[in-house]
Amino acid sequence: MTYCIGLRLNRGLVFMSDTRTSAGVDNFAVSKKMFSWTVPGERMITVMTAGNLATTQAMISLLEERSKTAEERDPSILRQTTMFQVARLVGATLKEVINESTGGGQEAADQFSASVIVGGQIGDGKPTIFLIYPQGNFIEVTDDTPFFQIGETKYGKPIIVRAYDPDMGFEEAIKLLLVSFDSTVKSNLSVGLPFDLQVYESDSFVGDRTRRIEDTDPVYQAISAGWGDALKSAFQKLPAYKL
Amino acid sequence: MTYCIGLRLNRGLVFMSDTRTSAGVDNFAVSKKMFSWTVPGERMITVMTAGNLATTQAMISLLEERSKTAEERDPSILRQTTMFQVARLVGATLKEVINESTGGGQEAADQFSASVIVGGQIGDGKPTIFLIYPQGNFIEVTDDTPFFQIGETKYGKPIIVRAYDPDMGFEEAIKLLLVSFDSTVKSNLSVGLPFDLQVYESDSFVGDRTRRIEDTDPVYQAISAGWGDALKSAFQKLPAYKL
Repeated sequence: MTYCIGLRLNRGLVFMSDTRTSAGVDNFAVSKKMFSWTVPGERMITVMTAGNLATTQAMISLLEERSKTAEERDPSILRQTTMFQVARLVGATLKEVINESTGGGQEAADQFSASVIVGGQIGDGKPTIFLIYPQGNFIEVTDDTPFFQIGETKYGKPIIVRAYDPDMGFEEAIKLLLVSFDSTVKSNLSVGLPFDLQVYESDSFVGDRTRRIEDTDPVYQAISAGWGDALKSAFQKLPAYKL
Repeated sequence: MTYCIGLRLNRGLVFMSDTRTSAGVDNFAVSKKMFSWTVPGERMITVMTAGNLATTQAMISLLEERSKTAEERDPSILRQTTMFQVARLVGATLKEVINESTGGGQEAADQFSASVIVGGQIGDGKPTIFLIYPQGNFIEVTDDTPFFQIGETKYGKPIIVRAYDPDMGFEEAIKLLLVSFDSTVKSNLSVGLPFDLQVYESDSFVGDRTRRIEDTDPVYQAISAGWGDALKSAFQKLPAYKL
């Protein structure tokens, strides 16, 4: 499994992904699941993937290859004029890879399946995030649904539902995501460190605010260790239920 | 779906279950999932169920029927001499009902499937809890794994992993379970109020410390509403992650 979140804030976007890939508990490795394409001053596009690794790697390779020879080949992720068109391209590429693996067979589609989060900003458009399904169609974040998760989404959802605020700053959002990821890691072996993090400030059109967060990272360790204590003191403030 | 937890503390046991049963979002109802058998001074047994409602109702009816005519019929849940024997009986009854529904077919077994938590105390034995699988076999709580969940278990697990302490009092444990259930209810439509609660104090052999917690319950409302604020103040105590 996998765990990725794309979060839309009023000041921009925050992406975080884990890096564990596994085919059973005795076959796991570190694999990057976050990929970015940037044209400074014009566009920043980030893609995160969950699901069959062969499918997602092939999809990224196709997007990558086509972006590198943009003059000759279409469609390219670097030539789409809106994020909506980018989402359509990524969806079509994902569907193409899955169809190739299954030979069109419905039955086998599940095992080659994958989900993708695509976010970023192009030109005058607003920063936005899309969740792309294996069928190639997709949905976009809204004020009511300002974040998307893929992979092992359940453990880390309650904390985001509770604590998300569109006005929060990047540092607070990172903290929130780290707590959500840490809760997931503590409950599920298929999600693991290091985490990949990217922060995108609206209208900046740069893709270099990234960080790989290792399990030795002192701030992550402090958040992970401190969250238990913080929760306990939070408990104390709640009223007791007398039976 | 469903959400049930059985928690072992040093001072006794705590059980909580939701009451929503659904076959699709347009077909849901309130249905009890917690059942108790008590012989004052001798035994207290509580069963919680998740899965196919026809299966779990039939299983409870069989256990109930056989307990009412204990003189004539065996096996009865009221005549087992240990909790281990109770778990074997419940497991065998569950397996019997599933086999009856499927006619022995492996393929259909999934749709009639169910899981069960059985806890309690008999005579000189210690209070304990078992998790029973559809196949009729089961596992018991240990010091390392002091609680079992069935149903929609993922949303509410992280908070229990973090805040559980075997020495905690009943009031604190109820608070913990209410937060875990509230996190689940806020994230998943298939789990709903009211909740059924039972507290069992070791060696008391009484089954009357129960409560049905409605969504209008003022303490539950205070915990539900207060938890968001408590989390936010807990956040403030964590260090910021500067990028």
